[in-house]
Amino acid sequence: MMNLTQKPLEIGMLLYPGLTLLDLIGPHTVFSWFANIHLVWKTTDLVRTDTGIGVKPNATFATCPRELDILFVPGGSGQQNLMADTEVVTFLADRGARAKYVTSVCSGSLLLGAAGLLQGYKATSHWAAREGLSAFGAEPADARVVVDRNRITGGGVTAGIDFGLVVLAKLRGDDAAKFTQLAMEYDPEPPFNSGSPKTADPAIVQQALSTMASYVEKLASNPSAESRAE
Amino acid sequence: MMNLTQKPLEIGMLLYPGLTLLDLIGPHTVFSWFANIHLVWKTTDLVRTDTGIGVKPNATFATCPRELDILFVPGGSGQQNLMADTEVVTFLADRGARAKYVTSVCSGSLLLGAAGLLQGYKATSHWAAREGLSAFGAEPADARVVVDRNRITGGGVTAGIDFGLVVLAKLRGDDAAKFTQLAMEYDPEPPFNSGSPKTADPAIVQQALSTMASYVEKLASNPSAESRAE
Repeated sequence: MMNLTQKPLEIGMLLYPGLTLLDLIGPHTVFSWFANIHLVWKTTDLVRTDTGIGVKPNATFATCPRELDILFVPGGSGQQNLMADTEVVTFLADRGARAKYVTSVCSGSLLLGAAGLLQGYKATSHWAAREGLSAFGAEPADARVVVDRNRITGGGVTAGIDFGLVVLAKLRGDDAAKFTQLAMEYDPEPPFNSGSPKTADPAIVQQALSTMASYVEKLASNPSAESRAE
Repeated sequence: MMNLTQKPLEIGMLLYPGLTLLDLIGPHTVFSWFANIHLVWKTTDLVRTDTGIGVKPNATFATCPRELDILFVPGGSGQQNLMADTEVVTFLADRGARAKYVTSVCSGSLLLGAAGLLQGYKATSHWAAREGLSAFGAEPADARVVVDRNRITGGGVTAGIDFGLVVLAKLRGDDAAKFTQLAMEYDPEPPFNSGSPKTADPAIVQQALSTMASYVEKLASNPSAESRAE
């Protein structure tokens, strides 16, 4: 049986302007019963996420514990602005070098890549951004959650729930993850079969790609990504 | 094909202290491309959610539009404190009387019930709270998303994603929902089969029930619920 009285996990979750809030709140909810969660940014000012909801950091790069059980980076269009941000990349490289698990959901893996943390690892990202990982020496893998040694990366947005349960099971055992899955009533029934480019109508995939085109374009032309290619 | 240039939906989403943030952020993310979302509370002060993250309202009961396409109530343990809160119940009854769709996720349906909005309707809630609906003249239904005329209610926490896609399809068509499902990469792969009391290990169900016991107990003894029973 799971034990709710164990020492809480120390988890650092990166915040930044333009993160996709659901990337964060899926795993945050999964971890919350078992963890001290440090929501980390440069300052403790409210951070505006993708849909306009603000989230208040409770730690800064200076105050975040040095030793973390989990370092986590969410995705979102704001990720692009941070790829060459020395302060962010230095923080991730520092905590990532010592964390038990180095993790991400969605395009957060590109930030792990920019911090040099995915060199030689299999990893995933949002389906539309996944190939960008090769620019950082990572091997893009087509799976919802990719575990390669202590690097655990999830696919786009809602993959954060599956990802969170996989990570929790590693650190607190299967029963803890099963309890959490039941408490969150995670028994999904998508009303359509349109959650992956492999199953979605090709016209819908095209529309999604063109809507996200400016995003992918900016990603591909990111100078930091280019300089790290090869 | 879906049309992103249609007039945005007007959606009122109730905030309150102790709401379960994922109940809100699942549907909020689904709706966000298609809507003006009014996050409504008594004041615009930061509202502290279940895991400690604060969310800032952008509307009050006074400023929220009177005519809404969707009235939405999330669940969470804080729901109990509002069951006899005249200001909240009056707001819900007022907007609910005119909204195109009256909706909830998780124990949010108990608040709709307290506002008299589920009398004679089939509805659902978190699995551990569902039976409480009968105290409000609703018929508890065991399904992830329950549609009865213009009342649409979702199950616990993560059901908000399925719920959101069902509601979006009704208001903006199947293609809009399929596009959104693809953008959110909602192609779930739960690592365990433990998301429902029907499939979870009975010992895990017992542990979940005893952990949530104080919650359910308070729910059952809620004076407002009692006065509305029969």
